Amino acid sequence: MKKMKITALLLVAAALNAPLALQAQAQEHPNLIMTKSGIEKVRQNLGAVPLFDASVQSVKNEVDAEIALGIDTPIPKDFSGGYTHQRHKLNFLTAQKAGALYQILQDDKYAKYIRDMLFQYEAMYVDLPVHPQERSYARGKLFWQCLNDSNWLVYMAQAYDAIYDTLSEQERDKLENNLFRPFADFISIENPQFYNRVHNHSTWGNAAVGMIALVMDDEELLDRALYGIEDDGLELGGRDNDGGFIKVAGQKAGFLANLEDPFSPDGYYTEGPYYQRYAMYPFLIFGLAMNHVKPEMKVFSHKDNVLLKGVDALLNLTDADGEFFPLNDGQKGMSYYTPALVTAVDIAYQYGEQNPQLLSIAEKQNQVLLDQSGLAVAMGIRDGKAQPFVKNSINLRDGQEGDQGGVGVLRHGNEDLTLVFKYAAQGLSHGHYDKLSFSLYESGDEVLQDYGLARFVNIGQKGGGNYLKENKTWAKTTIAHNTLSINEQMHFSGKYEIASEHHSDLYFYDDTKDDVQVVSATEGNAYPGTQMHRTMAIIKNEDFEKPFLLDIMKVKSDSKNQYDLPFYYMGQVLSDNFEYNSPTSLKPLGEQNGYQHLYLEGKGKPSSSTTQFSWLGDGKYYTLTSATEESDELLLTRLGANDPDFNLRRDAAFMLRRNGSGNTTFASVVEPHGSYSPVSELSVNSDSSIAELSIVHDDDAYTAVSIESIKGVRSLFILANKDAAKSKQHKLKVKGKEFSWTGPYLYTGS
Amino acid sequence: MKKMKITALLLVAAALNAPLALQAQAQEHPNLIMTKSGIEKVRQNLGAVPLFDASVQSVKNEVDAEIALGIDTPIPKDFSGGYTHQRHKLNFLTAQKAGALYQILQDDKYAKYIRDMLFQYEAMYVDLPVHPQERSYARGKLFWQCLNDSNWLVYMAQAYDAIYDTLSEQERDKLENNLFRPFADFISIENPQFYNRVHNHSTWGNAAVGMIALVMDDEELLDRALYGIEDDGLELGGRDNDGGFIKVAGQKAGFLANLEDPFSPDGYYTEGPYYQRYAMYPFLIFGLAMNHVKPEMKVFSHKDNVLLKGVDALLNLTDADGEFFPLNDGQKGMSYYTPALVTAVDIAYQYGEQNPQLLSIAEKQNQVLLDQSGLAVAMGIRDGKAQPFVKNSINLRDGQEGDQGGVGVLRHGNEDLTLVFKYAAQGLSHGHYDKLSFSLYESGDEVLQDYGLARFVNIGQKGGGNYLKENKTWAKTTIAHNTLSINEQMHFSGKYEIASEHHSDLYFYDDTKDDVQVVSATEGNAYPGTQMHRTMAIIKNEDFEKPFLLDIMKVKSDSKNQYDLPFYYMGQVLSDNFEYNSPTSLKPLGEQNGYQHLYLEGKGKPSSSTTQFSWLGDGKYYTLTSATEESDELLLTRLGANDPDFNLRRDAAFMLRRNGSGNTTFASVVEPHGSYSPVSELSVNSDSSIAELSIVHDDDAYTAVSIESIKGVRSLFILANKDAAKSKQHKLKVKGKEFSWTGPYLYTGS
Repeated sequence: MKKMKITALLLVAAALNAPLALQAQAQEHPNLIMTKSGIEKVRQNLGAVPLFDASVQSVKNEVDAEIALGIDTPIPKDFSGGYTHQRHKLNFLTAQKAGALYQILQDDKYAKYIRDMLFQYEAMYVDLPVHPQERSYARGKLFWQCLNDSNWLVYMAQAYDAIYDTLSEQERDKLENNLFRPFADFISIENPQFYNRVHNHSTWGNAAVGMIALVMDDEELLDRALYGIEDDGLELGGRDNDGGFIKVAGQKAGFLANLEDPFSPDGYYTEGPYYQRYAMYPFLIFGLAMNHVKPEMKVFSHKDNVLLKGVDALLNLTDADGEFFPLNDGQKGMSYYTPALVTAVDIAYQYGEQNPQLLSIAEKQNQVLLDQSGLAVAMGIRDGKAQPFVKNSINLRDGQEGDQGGVGVLRHGNEDLTLVFKYAAQGLSHGHYDKLSFSLYESGDEVLQDYGLARFVNIGQKGGGNYLKENKTWAKTTIAHNTLSINEQMHFSGKYEIASEHHSDLYFYDDTKDDVQVVSATEGNAYPGTQMHRTMAIIKNEDFEKPFLLDIMKVKSDSKNQYDLPFYYMGQVLSDNFEYNSPTSLKPLGEQNGYQHLYLEGKGKPSSSTTQFSWLGDGKYYTLTSATEESDELLLTRLGANDPDFNLRRDAAFMLRRNGSGNTTFASVVEPHGSYSPVSELSVNSDSSIAELSIVHDDDAYTAVSIESIKGVRSLFILANKDAAKSKQHKLKVKGKEFSWTGPYLYTGS
Repeated sequence: MKKMKITALLLVAAALNAPLALQAQAQEHPNLIMTKSGIEKVRQNLGAVPLFDASVQSVKNEVDAEIALGIDTPIPKDFSGGYTHQRHKLNFLTAQKAGALYQILQDDKYAKYIRDMLFQYEAMYVDLPVHPQERSYARGKLFWQCLNDSNWLVYMAQAYDAIYDTLSEQERDKLENNLFRPFADFISIENPQFYNRVHNHSTWGNAAVGMIALVMDDEELLDRALYGIEDDGLELGGRDNDGGFIKVAGQKAGFLANLEDPFSPDGYYTEGPYYQRYAMYPFLIFGLAMNHVKPEMKVFSHKDNVLLKGVDALLNLTDADGEFFPLNDGQKGMSYYTPALVTAVDIAYQYGEQNPQLLSIAEKQNQVLLDQSGLAVAMGIRDGKAQPFVKNSINLRDGQEGDQGGVGVLRHGNEDLTLVFKYAAQGLSHGHYDKLSFSLYESGDEVLQDYGLARFVNIGQKGGGNYLKENKTWAKTTIAHNTLSINEQMHFSGKYEIASEHHSDLYFYDDTKDDVQVVSATEGNAYPGTQMHRTMAIIKNEDFEKPFLLDIMKVKSDSKNQYDLPFYYMGQVLSDNFEYNSPTSLKPLGEQNGYQHLYLEGKGKPSSSTTQFSWLGDGKYYTLTSATEESDELLLTRLGANDPDFNLRRDAAFMLRRNGSGNTTFASVVEPHGSYSPVSELSVNSDSSIAELSIVHDDDAYTAVSIESIKGVRSLFILANKDAAKSKQHKLKVKGKEFSWTGPYLYTGS
């Protein structure tokens, strides 16, 4: 970045109360997201690119309806579920769209709409106090939190850029001095606890300040956006509303730090896909604006193109319906149909390598951005370039350097079976306490679920649309997840400060063989003195109708413990091969750490060493088969205890409980099979194909699991527990037969 | 019907062990469903009618795959979930299809497949004992119940007809003497308790015997099919597995009696749409066969075309997704996509008035019958004749003469809101004890549900795929439905013999005004000494975003009682305006009559005279607003107590409980409003538009309910309780203001 050195000019500028110009020549507008040349191309192609034209028409209908309603900028009052919140949000969304329409259609009514709205805000903002709702650690002015004020500025900066040239210098000065600059100052220097962190909140704040800086050509603000506030005056150790740290030692700040830290080299965002989806917009939009205005700074391609990699990672963290896996705090149902992903896909296509697979996602989204990237995508679709977006297995490392665990996604076929295995870092304040947990999907259907968050986002009746207390008492707990809970405690005792210092470690990941794909990881810090090692394999064996999941959880502990391994199945119980008691009145399973929310609907003992439990999901059958010990307990639980406000879903789990063991190993198979249709009433293959599952060898060095099918065919999975090297040669005698192989595992018909 | 009188011919025929020929001339084949001329037309149009060609191809793929697998006719052993059941079922389904393919494609392999299969059955049948599973009151031979054996014969008769001309006389004699005639005798004279009733079981039996009679040209069997067995030797009072009577005094039998009795003049089938869907196939297929072979008997147009009316009634008893309302025993999800409805729609089009609206249903079904009716439908679609199937409000009378109550379906808009109000007769053995109950749909989504049956049809693991005991202990009970339970007793004390003697009575039905549609009915026998009068109106008022349901339940009783009025809402609790206690441990609400299956999740008292309870369904908001009394109790229940096998869904209800009242009136509004999307995270109109709901007048003659909107606009619904005449003039002073109107109700802005 070239800084100007013409002192005289600076003095003149200061005298005029004008901003420090970044360049001696005034820049052209629009140049933030839309560019002059891009808009020209758009105009030339109007009427010739169906999806682009449809997108223009749809946005036009929306904006025209808003213009007809008239502009309302009410005095801020409500939480996210309420009117003033929704109104201000709709204002900035509509203004941004009106800006695009103005540029494309050159109809002055859109410019006038934005100008009038901005001046209403300008008139209001000067005396506007902080928002009356007091819940946030960083209250905004238009909204209850600075985060939403930042949203406003990111969008309004684009609207302002679009009509910049239609305003007189006097008008611009008024807006910039009374509205934009004070607004940017408020969310940054007046709220460093919000602005000066590595967190999705700060990313929005940084981008907001940066976007308006670029439009106003304001170097000071741009510096603040990129590098944060130098002296923020914050003390170490404060917490935000989600329990996240506000300041830790050595904390960096600003957009570049936010780009650096939460993204791994693979583009995985440590908070998880739901928040990545939310954060991608400011990342991409400000990255792109920098690319247009200051290409020489290479912000957009920072960290080896991590932003474009992030788009790819995000698309790969979806099920077959395009819904994001609800890792950590994630609202189920959020998908790549959200506008942020339209932005992401279009920008990734245009500024990446024009990947034709992205076009098929855009086709499904059925809308494009109203700029040159949206045009390029719509033209690609028109010209028949779209190819199916193929989601393969993928291992995404977590951590700035990619060395803090990760998330492994194993897929078989065309997303016929998808395993999501989490062995990541804590994920900042939105992280859950669930090391080595997993969820399982058959196409777009959850087989074993991750609960997601306990929140009804933007639904005012439910705690103002904010996080509910059950997010902490249930959703974040370990027992809420498909992983091991020991002695009814949470991983890291549920302490964020401890959890944040640790991460699980990959043991190995191997997706090279289509019919046996494996991910394996260890966790040694969640329970001090205990080492957990979980290995999960998606296997397609010809004796089985569909691919299945093999799950081996090996535990070493220096103490006797109670182990609980739940499976949150989705569907209705079909059958089982064990006896259980079913109480007439339901009581909570425990008193804390999530257990207080579980009712015990049944409690039994294994009837054999191979325990089976089947359920009927959405027209498909599933059987869980586990190698059990005589003293194991089998629990059937139902969520909903101590939930007076009905904030939790009444979901069920099958839980293996093992008492008193120090070292122990759980081995299970989750087996999808058959189908049922209420229309044909045909029940197909409703029985498991497994006759016996057993751990046939288990010591420090090796664990071997045998699966015998009902046809009497045995297969064997042997895991080398201590050396995952690909080249390492192994030899083991199992039940009198010697096996030798190279690499961390062997899977074989016996 | 002309009976032959040529004694000599009869003697010759007898001597040859040949059947009694119905006509002196041998009839041509095929002529049962396919006809010679129909097939010729089909052949001429091959390759020219896309949907027909696609249907041929799809059936061909199916049948060719079965042929490749080889024929298997295993020794019968299993219930409906098991292999032998499924295999024999697939056999007859495939044989019937192969017959059609043989006629259309003239490929001998299809004829050979059927012949080989039939002779395998012929070889097996001669020594086949009754089915080993002993549960049924009428065990079959191939299947566990005669019902399924009858299915087999209905289909196999068509397959036999298709290849009749390819067989030698000797082959035909062998099949007829060793297989078809003994088979027909077994399901009829050897099982009169199955065959000789008015019941969907008997309909299948009668049609089966009749179909094979027509192919074999056997007068005796045809008589038996049409008129039943004269001397069945059955005693009065026996029961089938569902608790239905096997023989009652004056019982008729045979196909014509079955056509006469369960259908009302409106085509409503007294067991409900799920069983009508099942029974329609034999009714239509045998009716059609009679139409082809014996048109002079006019079986097809019997009772003023009740069969075609039945198809129309059935299509009108579906939600916006084409799923049947689960009145009485009905499995949810069953829809007009089932093959029986493909048959029904195609036949109704061809042999009815070529209603172009039926073509749009056929388009959705995306398949047609492989005969002349399927061809006609496919040609109609090809030629662009299809029109949308419009479902209007409809009142379907129940009872042979249409005088035993009925089912009223009120619809607003394009199925935006649909009320299903049941005031029918008991519905034979598949009936539930739920007079004056209702369910409510917003498009294809249930707002307030009817539970349907407690059965996993054909899923062996769940009680052999048969009715579960919870069908009786829960699904049939009164408290399982959205209607009034008194003193925790069932209607008619849950006694089938009493319930079968009664029905509710229509008070009035009026769908003439688009914005106020009303159905009102009374029930005086469900609880002796108590009269219930329920009035339900679908109202669209401009103060409300969407149409809403007004529900007035007026009770007169000569004793003090406990009244329970539940609302089985679908979704998650959003908010309410009353205080309630939420117990930490859950206990059953009662001990019997369904109450033993309900957990009490919350219990409260009204905080005001207008009680509100809101929930979030599938992306849509709903509020129930009720006029409550201070002493009312408000219960929140959850299904699942005393359900050790997890046979019941964990569904919830909001329940109004009123104690000690003799005469009382409940008035409520069920109000759909707004929407929520987890993708946009936009929450729209999540609050009720009602400020106050109150009963402002209530005596023997009139009941008036006032609804005040949050904008302060009042509307008033006045019901004349004693005279529903359209021409009757009424006058009433309410809160000092006089209203006068004509007809049973007034709805007005005040």
